[in-house]
Amino acid sequence: TLLESKENEKLGSNTFTYRSHTCGEIRSCNIGEKVTLCGWVQFVRLSKFLLLRDAYGLIQCISTDSKFDLSSIPLETIVKIQGTVTARPKNMINPTMTTGEIEVSITDLEILNTVDKIPFNLREYQKPKKQLRLQYRYIDLRFPEMQYNLRQRSNMLHNMRRFLIEKHSFCEVETPTLFCRTPGGAREFVVPTHHRGLFYSLVQSPQQFKQMLMSGGIDRYFQVARCYRDETTRPDRQPEFTQLDIELSFTSLDGVLSLIENLLYESFIKQLPKPPFQRMTYKEAIEGYGSDKPDLTYDLKLRNVSHLFNDKSAFLVAYSQILGKLSAKYREIINKLKNKYEVNIVFVENLSKALGEDITSNIRHTIGRENSCILALGDKENVCLCLGEIRQMLAVLLKSKSLLSVEETMAPLWVVEFPLFVKGENGLETCHHPFTSPHPDDLHLLDSDPSRMRSLAYDLVLNGNEVGGGSIRIHNTNLQEKVLKVLDIDSKKLTHFLDALRSGCPPHGGIALGIDRLISIACQTESIRDVIAFPKSHDGKDPLSGAPNDISDEDKKYYHIGIVN
Amino acid sequence: TLLESKENEKLGSNTFTYRSHTCGEIRSCNIGEKVTLCGWVQFVRLSKFLLLRDAYGLIQCISTDSKFDLSSIPLETIVKIQGTVTARPKNMINPTMTTGEIEVSITDLEILNTVDKIPFNLREYQKPKKQLRLQYRYIDLRFPEMQYNLRQRSNMLHNMRRFLIEKHSFCEVETPTLFCRTPGGAREFVVPTHHRGLFYSLVQSPQQFKQMLMSGGIDRYFQVARCYRDETTRPDRQPEFTQLDIELSFTSLDGVLSLIENLLYESFIKQLPKPPFQRMTYKEAIEGYGSDKPDLTYDLKLRNVSHLFNDKSAFLVAYSQILGKLSAKYREIINKLKNKYEVNIVFVENLSKALGEDITSNIRHTIGRENSCILALGDKENVCLCLGEIRQMLAVLLKSKSLLSVEETMAPLWVVEFPLFVKGENGLETCHHPFTSPHPDDLHLLDSDPSRMRSLAYDLVLNGNEVGGGSIRIHNTNLQEKVLKVLDIDSKKLTHFLDALRSGCPPHGGIALGIDRLISIACQTESIRDVIAFPKSHDGKDPLSGAPNDISDEDKKYYHIGIVN
Repeated sequence: TLLESKENEKLGSNTFTYRSHTCGEIRSCNIGEKVTLCGWVQFVRLSKFLLLRDAYGLIQCISTDSKFDLSSIPLETIVKIQGTVTARPKNMINPTMTTGEIEVSITDLEILNTVDKIPFNLREYQKPKKQLRLQYRYIDLRFPEMQYNLRQRSNMLHNMRRFLIEKHSFCEVETPTLFCRTPGGAREFVVPTHHRGLFYSLVQSPQQFKQMLMSGGIDRYFQVARCYRDETTRPDRQPEFTQLDIELSFTSLDGVLSLIENLLYESFIKQLPKPPFQRMTYKEAIEGYGSDKPDLTYDLKLRNVSHLFNDKSAFLVAYSQILGKLSAKYREIINKLKNKYEVNIVFVENLSKALGEDITSNIRHTIGRENSCILALGDKENVCLCLGEIRQMLAVLLKSKSLLSVEETMAPLWVVEFPLFVKGENGLETCHHPFTSPHPDDLHLLDSDPSRMRSLAYDLVLNGNEVGGGSIRIHNTNLQEKVLKVLDIDSKKLTHFLDALRSGCPPHGGIALGIDRLISIACQTESIRDVIAFPKSHDGKDPLSGAPNDISDEDKKYYHIGIVN
Repeated sequence: TLLESKENEKLGSNTFTYRSHTCGEIRSCNIGEKVTLCGWVQFVRLSKFLLLRDAYGLIQCISTDSKFDLSSIPLETIVKIQGTVTARPKNMINPTMTTGEIEVSITDLEILNTVDKIPFNLREYQKPKKQLRLQYRYIDLRFPEMQYNLRQRSNMLHNMRRFLIEKHSFCEVETPTLFCRTPGGAREFVVPTHHRGLFYSLVQSPQQFKQMLMSGGIDRYFQVARCYRDETTRPDRQPEFTQLDIELSFTSLDGVLSLIENLLYESFIKQLPKPPFQRMTYKEAIEGYGSDKPDLTYDLKLRNVSHLFNDKSAFLVAYSQILGKLSAKYREIINKLKNKYEVNIVFVENLSKALGEDITSNIRHTIGRENSCILALGDKENVCLCLGEIRQMLAVLLKSKSLLSVEETMAPLWVVEFPLFVKGENGLETCHHPFTSPHPDDLHLLDSDPSRMRSLAYDLVLNGNEVGGGSIRIHNTNLQEKVLKVLDIDSKKLTHFLDALRSGCPPHGGIALGIDRLISIACQTESIRDVIAFPKSHDGKDPLSGAPNDISDEDKKYYHIGIVN
């Protein structure tokens, strides 16, 4: 893969600086060399040993000269040290440090900047609290994990660009973020202008632009795009996020899927299975896992036992009976799910009472002697979605007791054949976005029964997380206008877009990959915040600067806005 | 350079699509091959020849079969053509076309999309008017020039990334665009939030973030950063623009300049002189060219003749006397400049009357027999700036009459030793930004006479255009606080930033390169709009979508804002 290629080796970490080496790169082969190092004082021991840290590692410096009063230097002071690399005495070699065979004998030490505000210590094994980490992010970033995450992010994006540009002739195009409102999309931030009463919207994705680029002959487009959504009240959402946005002309669903599989296979930090990745229809995902983003690293598949009943759907999830009876806590969660989805739930011990002996013995035969099960009855989609949540809960519980075998791999999955529309409060809504092409086999349903139509949309799922979504788009103006009509979207708000389609727009399709989520999975972080240099905390607040803030009266006047309740 | 390297060759333009070739790549060596092409119908001749265009070139397709009614296909229809590559008859070979030796004999033709709205024709040599081009940008992008500009932009940015990441271990970090207001900067767009009365500001540059990254140990940072300034009323400005933003720790002015010289030398589209680039102090630039961004592709240097006068500064610009007496039009412009800068102007023919014989003969000796001159007297800086504008005007005039030798090269120049402060309406203002380090030789003036201090700022000038600016930054909190005080900026608004400096921030410096301007110069376009896919027109309006627009009452309510006069 590109990641491993020779050209990608880090060679010039010290060019254009006054250090000769990083703290992490010195080895026995450097013994005798005079070096200049710059870094933070991580620890001082016995007024003689100074542990120096930079972004690349730790190195021990030693001074036997009373000229340098090491013990007086506060931790996290930034210093420049000149010295000679020497071998450590044999009994002082530290095999747990990559620089543990050597030390640097200090000949000169210069304090580069004073330090007087360190709210937490970099040496502590216990990480400071999240809010404190975000407030002093510039110190938090010094932790090796954060250094690793941000550098891996940079590397992965660079590898993606190399794949797309060098191997497959894609062109990266920067598209505007100040644009007009997208009808039927998520809530978009608005930006007042000095034209009274007129606002830009911050784009939620470059969707319209990339399709207009297809019309404009930029037939292989991508962009690492900043996108904005005002969904700050939802957990683990950022008001701005990054998407790898891709679109190409003259392609097919198989074409896009193959492109993305190869892209990820060659640029992802973690080893992925060789393409093609597994595919599953939306129907299979719902009926098999009760979710449109199933985690395939463990089994626990739903089983359809509806044939045992006359008039309703019945599915079950079976699990090792060693787990025993579920505690009250879990039963309560299941009870809530039961009410949420309006289904009936039958636990294994109540089977015969609730369903009679015939059905019970049939079910016991299905699940096998060694297994327990939970059964749900009712409307098919609700039964499956309910059991899907139960499946995930059971998985956590079973894993904690080593009763479930979980593969420690990356398990990517395409979910295809989504419905084109979903039922919303005010009629049909789009399942992906209004520009998604209907499945060609279902076109005849557009007038008669649009709710039954499937689309040419696809989601990429990685270990139970949605990490990307896309579709083959509608390129025909008439079809686009019909779909907008079903969605009750005023096509006048998309005049420019419809004109672009009717100006000779090629057939095209694409995808957007969620970069924050992808890196977060690769780096196995708890939250996407851990792979973003300066994230916002809950509710869109910036703990570092205090943003958002009030603005001046002059600004309000300039933008013709007032604050109202 | 990387641009020419093997890996950067375009190999896979057709992967993941149903075309076999692009329209531009077929040559005599392909004769006999069956090909599938997709493109726009550029022209149909005699119902037999179809000129097919895609992003990569033009190719002639031929049909002798009445099955395909070529003459009925509207121009700009997007089609898929299957056929066999054949040699053109000798007398039909077109040496002006790269595919002029062959043609494609059509075996199948499929219309991929209907077309019914083409406001201008791609075949016309006369470009449509600017406003129409922007309104139908998705068609305008099909012109070969726009294709070239956008692809060159993508290539240059990729080469810059390869240089920074692969050769010099830089880490690309994405920083937020939703942030708090920068005190003392340009006007920033504001973004209302659902927190009543609280707003984000859209960043005008990642300046604070990149300095905090230095504090955070990301010691070699860059970002291709989207920046925002509400300066839409100024000509050729975009409300959002792109900067290559770079910062590194443990460096010096020479270090940053050398980094940028090598970066541009290896990644710029046009050949640049081998590093190091020429350097000039601000004083030399003003006194030699009357500008802090002198165009060095021609001479016309100002000459200082102040020694001929007792009490004022006098400079002149000399030019070929073949030009003759300046016409009334130019004299009027010069008269306006004279009033603007409050200086005296003496034309060559008035020298003896205005200054007497002694000084005149001295000046005539200085400029030489073959030259005329314009002389300005008064305050030194004003005299120089006035003559600087006259110099540029004269250059255009002289060039048009071939009386000035102009080098057709790229002439990069560093301007260094800028003043730290400039006099503004309300006291001293910053010349670059408040985080610029004073020149170490002038530190003693900070309390006594700050207006005389020079800084460690530098501008990169390319053929008379400022294409980048940066500085060594202040890393010491006390010094930063003093500078903020001189600028009358409330340091409480920068608490987070000052805390970052005092947490052990390393010495650091960097630069921001204006990517739109750089590409515009490289592609020799009239405006930066020609290197931006979807630019705004004057006053920040989007001719394509009509943005900015009014927003819904629901949005106003959600963001607690009302429209006022």
